[in-house]
Amino acid sequence: MECSEVMQIVLVGSGNVASSLGPALQRLGHKIVQVFSRSEQSAIILANKLGCDYTLDLHSLREDADLYYICLADDALISLAEKIVEGRGESLFVHVAGCVPMDVLSCPHRGVMWPIHGFSRNSVVDDWSDIPLTIEASDDESMQVVRQIAENLSRHVCLADSEARPKIHLAAEFCCNFANHCYDLADTILHNCSVPFSMMHHIVRSTAENVILTSPHAAQTGPARRHDKKVMDYDRNLLKDNPDLLEIYNLLSGNIENNYRGVS
Amino acid sequence: MECSEVMQIVLVGSGNVASSLGPALQRLGHKIVQVFSRSEQSAIILANKLGCDYTLDLHSLREDADLYYICLADDALISLAEKIVEGRGESLFVHVAGCVPMDVLSCPHRGVMWPIHGFSRNSVVDDWSDIPLTIEASDDESMQVVRQIAENLSRHVCLADSEARPKIHLAAEFCCNFANHCYDLADTILHNCSVPFSMMHHIVRSTAENVILTSPHAAQTGPARRHDKKVMDYDRNLLKDNPDLLEIYNLLSGNIENNYRGVS
Repeated sequence: MECSEVMQIVLVGSGNVASSLGPALQRLGHKIVQVFSRSEQSAIILANKLGCDYTLDLHSLREDADLYYICLADDALISLAEKIVEGRGESLFVHVAGCVPMDVLSCPHRGVMWPIHGFSRNSVVDDWSDIPLTIEASDDESMQVVRQIAENLSRHVCLADSEARPKIHLAAEFCCNFANHCYDLADTILHNCSVPFSMMHHIVRSTAENVILTSPHAAQTGPARRHDKKVMDYDRNLLKDNPDLLEIYNLLSGNIENNYRGVS
Repeated sequence: MECSEVMQIVLVGSGNVASSLGPALQRLGHKIVQVFSRSEQSAIILANKLGCDYTLDLHSLREDADLYYICLADDALISLAEKIVEGRGESLFVHVAGCVPMDVLSCPHRGVMWPIHGFSRNSVVDDWSDIPLTIEASDDESMQVVRQIAENLSRHVCLADSEARPKIHLAAEFCCNFANHCYDLADTILHNCSVPFSMMHHIVRSTAENVILTSPHAAQTGPARRHDKKVMDYDRNLLKDNPDLLEIYNLLSGNIENNYRGVS
């Protein structure tokens, strides 16, 4: 089970992650031997793409693969884990979920390779090199395989155990969902003055570029950062008819002010 | 005072905006005839760069320029506006502030050209073409000049009067300062598990790219968007020892949930 060898891999799942991961593993020289899915339609599409068999029945899951990549939604992973590993004791099982502990897989060789990426419907990721992967494994031999595949896929690989991974997942929610909600709140404000959100594209892009070049703490600007009470009062007045927005403004501004207490 | 002509321009201010705008105006073929600044050091640097005179004394401000670009901090703009326009009745005065009304300039020809960009210390902007500019002017003739300069500088020019401009400024704070604060909160979470913020660079970049390709509402993902109570409870438990972060998590999640009420 050394990773420099061609591995015989079963893909459990046929959703966004499996559809992106399968071809990427093939490009590394590995052989996808089977796709399992509960959806026949997507199983057929992915199996055709990969040139392999598929099954809709867990009882027909191959028993002779080296590696099983389990790319299921969290609930399905948790409920099917036991059946998937059953009777396939010496193989390596790897799931790709951010918030599910590795030990949901009750087999001797197990691991996790979680991509920090928002996979979206109908959009297959061809280039994995920029997608950060957090990895974990139950034993040295498994780690060697998981690490080598991860490092062949991506330039950004980081160890994270099952305690750390959900925290990293939560951090990613702040960077993705909550940053995007800030954009959405800006859009609400702009609607009121008939300005298109495209006028924000430059500041969205430059804010992201700036934090990548520096750090979140160093990159911060704005009235709360510099304790500019006059501008903050002005802003609050603009939001006086929108209590939801005002509450968010006050909470985030207060939090930023606390971060730069004593700093002008 | 037609803008296709070479204009004689005075720059009032020698900070980040003036230092970026002066060379950009020269590249459009205009002539910077003087720099005013209260700081001799930066006045000398900018005047040398532009090959023009400078003054530290408002009484020595040229009276014969076509156009005065006032690039001062808000407080300085408000307190000096009257003295700047005094005795220079027929010239056009344009300020570049997001939150100061145009009418702080009590002269017949006045305007605003506010760049939606976070100018930062020691970083001069050479290429203005992607920086959105909101413009306003007191009369048609002034608007023609302001608009032509703006459109020659940037591909993204939008009309915004003194009522709309502070709202656009506030929207930009959400896209810049508050989005960056979300990155900072993520960084706080990552510190606890010794993961570098660089593991978030990909999701920061792809979230920004995604909202530019779609819209904030369409781009939203995550547990609050899909009303996933289980993941949200899990996240809340991770934040139980950090009441500030938990409060922000709850407020933003609740707000996102409301935006997608009835949408699964």
